Amino acid sequence: MEERQISAAVIKRLPRYYRYLAELQNEDLERISSEELSRRMGVTASQIRQDLNNFGGFGQQGYGYNVEYLKEEIGKILGLDHTHNMIIIGAGNLGRALAGYAKFENRGFIVKGIFDNNPELIGKKVRDIKVVSMGVLDHFLEENDIAIATLAIPKEEAQAVAERLYAAGIRAIWNFAHVDLKLPGDAYVENVHLIESLMQLSYRLNKG
Amino acid sequence: MEERQISAAVIKRLPRYYRYLAELQNEDLERISSEELSRRMGVTASQIRQDLNNFGGFGQQGYGYNVEYLKEEIGKILGLDHTHNMIIIGAGNLGRALAGYAKFENRGFIVKGIFDNNPELIGKKVRDIKVVSMGVLDHFLEENDIAIATLAIPKEEAQAVAERLYAAGIRAIWNFAHVDLKLPGDAYVENVHLIESLMQLSYRLNKG
Repeated sequence: MEERQISAAVIKRLPRYYRYLAELQNEDLERISSEELSRRMGVTASQIRQDLNNFGGFGQQGYGYNVEYLKEEIGKILGLDHTHNMIIIGAGNLGRALAGYAKFENRGFIVKGIFDNNPELIGKKVRDIKVVSMGVLDHFLEENDIAIATLAIPKEEAQAVAERLYAAGIRAIWNFAHVDLKLPGDAYVENVHLIESLMQLSYRLNKG
Repeated sequence: MEERQISAAVIKRLPRYYRYLAELQNEDLERISSEELSRRMGVTASQIRQDLNNFGGFGQQGYGYNVEYLKEEIGKILGLDHTHNMIIIGAGNLGRALAGYAKFENRGFIVKGIFDNNPELIGKKVRDIKVVSMGVLDHFLEENDIAIATLAIPKEEAQAVAERLYAAGIRAIWNFAHVDLKLPGDAYVENVHLIESLMQLSYRLNKG
């Protein structure tokens, strides 16, 4: 497939296409028109065609999209055709909740380790993974092939831990700490700022 | 303040302004220029001026922004000048983690109830809130003034529960279930699709 510059907005929409196509596949649908996909997804058919054209366009005039093929291609673009090893820093409520999500594993995101500084949490198990001390983090990263580090720690600690992860070779950080991490340009940080998402709701409530 | 149509993109950026202004206030800064704010936030000064002009423009030529005043005004716009009562549906790992977040309460989002169908979870406590049966949900919503309902339940159950909440008067839903909820136009749903956020990271890793 030819390479193009794809906008961040399109990339953000791809997982949603992937999800709808997976549902269609579950319904044993073999193909779907952009009009029907548009109806289901609540976006315009022209938006769909435009988005998918970024990847060379998978549709055929008068046929529509082949559901299985399109899902697989989008999966490849999203890197879902292989697994990604992941660690979680912070074994508090949120860290343990994230570590316990079997659904991540189903999509190829495999939790390999959980780290914390708190002696009360070290040794606890989430599924079959034992929480271990932050002291062994660097050694662990040397010995294991880890792609993604999740930060479920207070914002005050996040920058220092992120720098330590970067120095150990980690380039992808899933950041739940409510702070903007400052890292070199080849690091990629995906923020999940829960409180900011709640504020969108209170804004709407405020507007009535 | 005059009312204008404000784009969703601006609204999404407001919590970040609020956060930076709160930090500046913690540093006892009284005022800040858009240039300095721009340097800290890593966005252009012109973007900042444009965004804040949506609200009548709080800056004064040659003075910059009054930190406390601007933070308070943005807080009002975001509805943070009063509290919002919230319930959480689903007392699994994620629901309990969300209920345990003291930081939400600090910003005025008060968890008033946690609901689940699972007899093993009913009666458990998160902070001082007892998990209660879904059977009492409607009665609870009649008796209490609840603004926001959080869905931390499997996607298969989410639509039915969302409809039940809507019928009981809830108009703001914080949805962690991985499904697009279909509700009347006066309902506002804020989605947190964790797996889609992870997919953004795997996309980047895939690109190298």
